[in-house]
Amino acid sequence: MITSKLKTFGIFCLSLLLLIIFIQIKPIIAQNQVADPLPSWNQGTTKQSIITFIKNVTDPSLKTYIPPSDRIATFDNDGTLWIEKPLYIQLEFVLYNLDSLAPQHPEWQTEEPFKTLLTQGIEGLKSLNLHDDIIKLLLVTHTGMSDTEFTTSVNQFFVKTKHPRFNRPYNQLIYQPMLELINYLKRNEFDVYICSGGGIDFIRTISEKTYGIPPQNVIGTAIEKEFIIKDEQVMFIRQAKIVEPINDKVGKPVNINRYIGKKPVIAVGNSDGDIQMLQYADSQSLPDLELLLHHDDSEREYDYNEGTEKALQLAKEHNWTIISLKKDFKQVFPF
Amino acid sequence: MITSKLKTFGIFCLSLLLLIIFIQIKPIIAQNQVADPLPSWNQGTTKQSIITFIKNVTDPSLKTYIPPSDRIATFDNDGTLWIEKPLYIQLEFVLYNLDSLAPQHPEWQTEEPFKTLLTQGIEGLKSLNLHDDIIKLLLVTHTGMSDTEFTTSVNQFFVKTKHPRFNRPYNQLIYQPMLELINYLKRNEFDVYICSGGGIDFIRTISEKTYGIPPQNVIGTAIEKEFIIKDEQVMFIRQAKIVEPINDKVGKPVNINRYIGKKPVIAVGNSDGDIQMLQYADSQSLPDLELLLHHDDSEREYDYNEGTEKALQLAKEHNWTIISLKKDFKQVFPF
Repeated sequence: MITSKLKTFGIFCLSLLLLIIFIQIKPIIAQNQVADPLPSWNQGTTKQSIITFIKNVTDPSLKTYIPPSDRIATFDNDGTLWIEKPLYIQLEFVLYNLDSLAPQHPEWQTEEPFKTLLTQGIEGLKSLNLHDDIIKLLLVTHTGMSDTEFTTSVNQFFVKTKHPRFNRPYNQLIYQPMLELINYLKRNEFDVYICSGGGIDFIRTISEKTYGIPPQNVIGTAIEKEFIIKDEQVMFIRQAKIVEPINDKVGKPVNINRYIGKKPVIAVGNSDGDIQMLQYADSQSLPDLELLLHHDDSEREYDYNEGTEKALQLAKEHNWTIISLKKDFKQVFPF
Repeated sequence: MITSKLKTFGIFCLSLLLLIIFIQIKPIIAQNQVADPLPSWNQGTTKQSIITFIKNVTDPSLKTYIPPSDRIATFDNDGTLWIEKPLYIQLEFVLYNLDSLAPQHPEWQTEEPFKTLLTQGIEGLKSLNLHDDIIKLLLVTHTGMSDTEFTTSVNQFFVKTKHPRFNRPYNQLIYQPMLELINYLKRNEFDVYICSGGGIDFIRTISEKTYGIPPQNVIGTAIEKEFIIKDEQVMFIRQAKIVEPINDKVGKPVNINRYIGKKPVIAVGNSDGDIQMLQYADSQSLPDLELLLHHDDSEREYDYNEGTEKALQLAKEHNWTIISLKKDFKQVFPF
């Protein structure tokens, strides 16, 4: 009787013990059998060089180890995280807004660049002096209102407009492989930033939902604001004055220094506007990785070199990793 | 024989089981028996209101819960995290540098405010037009060199100079209770920022070691920089031009908006320069906490109202929590 009870009890204890041990070990097994961190990337040297780099800088037993506090990664946005053709998405937003603002601005009927755009639409953009005219258009559609009004109009734009070729809201035209790369870096304790020539508030409206990147990790071109308190309510009024530098070319490292105060170890771009950011990362004393996305797939996306010629040349000279959209992306968009 | 073996085995299994259960439960017990998170604060309504606030916003079962992504806290620096008397520490740095720079600037022998300071030292400060003269002094001692040279001179200052009363390096004259508050917030998944009228690069030189706050979480007054690449080396040259706004008064919410893009739920300050930052947090739709440190302890630190009169008045009107250095700080400095 006692023997039988003891035996039952012994078996019960042993079973419980095995169960507990199994529960303890399970996550360890899972951790070591990690699924492919970049499933939308084709196997090849590009994918392998990214994975090898991350392993090298996160393994404390290696000389190449980088402590988490120095793991800074900066990503360009247009053409790197989301589509930039046929137009920068923010320019689509400008065109979307011009029509609705026109009734309040009768002077636009004769004043350039408004006249051309209002009569010719997107086609009219081709005849513009890009830098000056675009700044003028951006200021008109991005300033003079409160931050809240601006955010509302950006949100409306993403709901009401669609990409002409892919027939999807613009904020769905993001690159699935880049999303996976961002998440892979975050899991490996990287502090991941967007560093874009686009407007900081335009991107912040969508960055958290779209990329999982919170507003404080978005660097972009900023405008001055006036802070107002009225009836215990606070408000920012957007001023028609850019905070220098525009966050493009040499402005990127300047603003990375201003906003982050640390040199990135990973920089990801796609155009000549990203050269200085890539050079900045490349000047690291720590191990560093520079990635340049090359749009070479007219079938699934676009194929263009314009505005990226110098970056492609420098990438070859400095051993930056060129990502071929055609060869390296197994899937392009999340849909 | 078999009975005895079974018995031994049963006891062995049972022991192992109890051991494993104990190991599992231990951290849970530890978590619930947490030591006082603010040991250098005296018991009282101030300490209790902070602890209650943190419990209310981190308990998911409560209506007052705030998700971690919205847990933003901003701290002023001078007089809030470290001592600001008899002079702002950054002004001590200016005076320390003027002497060493003087030989390269013979014109300072006749030009104000240099002439007065070089002949009268700290005493000379009293006769200066504070805003304009200080900006002039700051630009002379903070610009024209590379970032690397500037950081080196800041580091030297902290090694070579001591506070006239406490006879300690200035970066030791930080408030132990505020350090504990920063760590308490960080453990509760707050993103903790410094938001100071002082120079962003001056503070970044010491923020990580001194407060555990990394450079990307420091907002301060910034100057423009030129980015230079020479022989594959990069360099920032500090320009004699302030990036508007100066990070004081109305500049604080403007820069919090620019750098973080979210409204703080906790703001901590000590002077009239912090009013707008406190009002900004106070305008939160989420639960919010405003703290104002009042220096009222001439024995252990200093006792002054000058420059804080309006903030103290507003604190009473808006139910901001006034921290009395005398009554609420059990210990003032870490030493």
